[in-house]
Amino acid sequence: MERIGFIGTGVMGLPMAGHLLDAGYPLGVFNRTPERAAPLLERGAVWHDDPASVASASDVVVTIVGFPADVEEVYLGGGGVLAHAAEGALAIDMTTSSPLLARRIAEAGEERGVAVLDAPVSGGDTGARNGTLAIMVGGDEDAFGRALPLFEAMGSNITRLGGPGAGQYTKMCNQIAIASGMVGVCESMHYARAAGLDPARVVETIEKGAAGSWSLSNLMPRAIAGDFAPGFKIKHFVKDLRIALDSAVEMGLDLPGLTMAHALYAALEAAGEGEDGTQALLRRYEQE
Amino acid sequence: MERIGFIGTGVMGLPMAGHLLDAGYPLGVFNRTPERAAPLLERGAVWHDDPASVASASDVVVTIVGFPADVEEVYLGGGGVLAHAAEGALAIDMTTSSPLLARRIAEAGEERGVAVLDAPVSGGDTGARNGTLAIMVGGDEDAFGRALPLFEAMGSNITRLGGPGAGQYTKMCNQIAIASGMVGVCESMHYARAAGLDPARVVETIEKGAAGSWSLSNLMPRAIAGDFAPGFKIKHFVKDLRIALDSAVEMGLDLPGLTMAHALYAALEAAGEGEDGTQALLRRYEQE
Repeated sequence: MERIGFIGTGVMGLPMAGHLLDAGYPLGVFNRTPERAAPLLERGAVWHDDPASVASASDVVVTIVGFPADVEEVYLGGGGVLAHAAEGALAIDMTTSSPLLARRIAEAGEERGVAVLDAPVSGGDTGARNGTLAIMVGGDEDAFGRALPLFEAMGSNITRLGGPGAGQYTKMCNQIAIASGMVGVCESMHYARAAGLDPARVVETIEKGAAGSWSLSNLMPRAIAGDFAPGFKIKHFVKDLRIALDSAVEMGLDLPGLTMAHALYAALEAAGEGEDGTQALLRRYEQE
Repeated sequence: MERIGFIGTGVMGLPMAGHLLDAGYPLGVFNRTPERAAPLLERGAVWHDDPASVASASDVVVTIVGFPADVEEVYLGGGGVLAHAAEGALAIDMTTSSPLLARRIAEAGEERGVAVLDAPVSGGDTGARNGTLAIMVGGDEDAFGRALPLFEAMGSNITRLGGPGAGQYTKMCNQIAIASGMVGVCESMHYARAAGLDPARVVETIEKGAAGSWSLSNLMPRAIAGDFAPGFKIKHFVKDLRIALDSAVEMGLDLPGLTMAHALYAALEAAGEGEDGTQALLRRYEQE
């Protein structure tokens, strides 16, 4: 079996790497905060002190780190994956990150004989734990075939949508649709409450028709009940929307809904609510 | 059986009145454009020359007309329903209209011994034809009980959400959620295309997760394929969003997503696209 190196064992990466152990892969790991990798080491994974060491000891490197700047450093830095992976290795970045950066990394990989896929996920920590993540993949078709058994260990809805960057672009499509949708469902609930309606009954009434959405049915009942626990944290959503906005600007697109949703969520983060779930947008309206 | 008077036999009202005939109710009808009522007259409905005549000949008056101004005239005008209905009559306005107007009409009805319900619908002309409309009802509970057999002839998801105006407020909650949701899915599809992705495959990939919505799954495949036939016409959506905005202002609410969605759709209507379906918002982006 291929030797896997896993970089980034946070709330998403830890259970994802666990599924690779479950599937029998030899696993080397690195994480900026070493303690978080402990559950994997107890199960036989091997610790490495830096990304370079992980890369040189692995056939396939999987990364899921924080921001595009982290991805850039882990891949393109002097101590990074591409400088230390063997020719013929495969690298898979599962961070939600910049599409153009994904293309740059894929190009740099090609020069060194390292195939690179961008493969961001959706489904949150629950999906990561249950192995039911959606995985949106961009990159070479042969590399995708090689990665598929790993993806199948971690997710259940796995699609390759094009060449390098296509996974990231698709993830941005996902976040763009959610962003304005959240504005709509939160404004709907705020209006319901102001009108003296029972918002929970409004959800039950309108979710069956053209207003139906995952956000309405899954997040609004929580928000109405004052439950703002994440789900998906506002600080991570703001990061993603910022990537989407930057990417839209790179393509010369004017997306006013995305721009507004980003501003609303960024204001919540600035107000100290970054650790709350995205449904806490409802609070922004109630503070009027 | 109660004698029904039906005012407004347009694209929604005509099939709705037809279901009441199917259920065996004696039916009197009036419509501003008389020819549109012809299919009902052929089936035994009785023509009336004005709303006053319909009202004085009926136990229950059902209205579904155009704009709040039309509702006001039909109910509160000198030749209107409330001036001519018998004491003990029931009036049901199924137009999507102003919540505060619905309250005024209910109060005026109470003074004359006429019970009034506001009962706007969703589900479009397809729902009207198939008798599967969602009916959102506000008003007195006894009046709702009396109206229920009629509602059951016309719809399948029938809910009373509170006193007078609650039906209209709930319909506005529905439209507010849809409005920003449409902005989100259209921006997502526009971004997908600009990024070189196949938008139809993006829909298939993201609709199963947190980005899933009725609008994404049902309207975006049509929009992507260049099919802008209504569904629900932009000019009617602009009317509804205007009512929602006015109503939000009356309650002192600031709903930036609704404000933006209204502006985007109003611009499309001003550009002559009022007869297209709401999915034609995608065109606004493609004309950049």
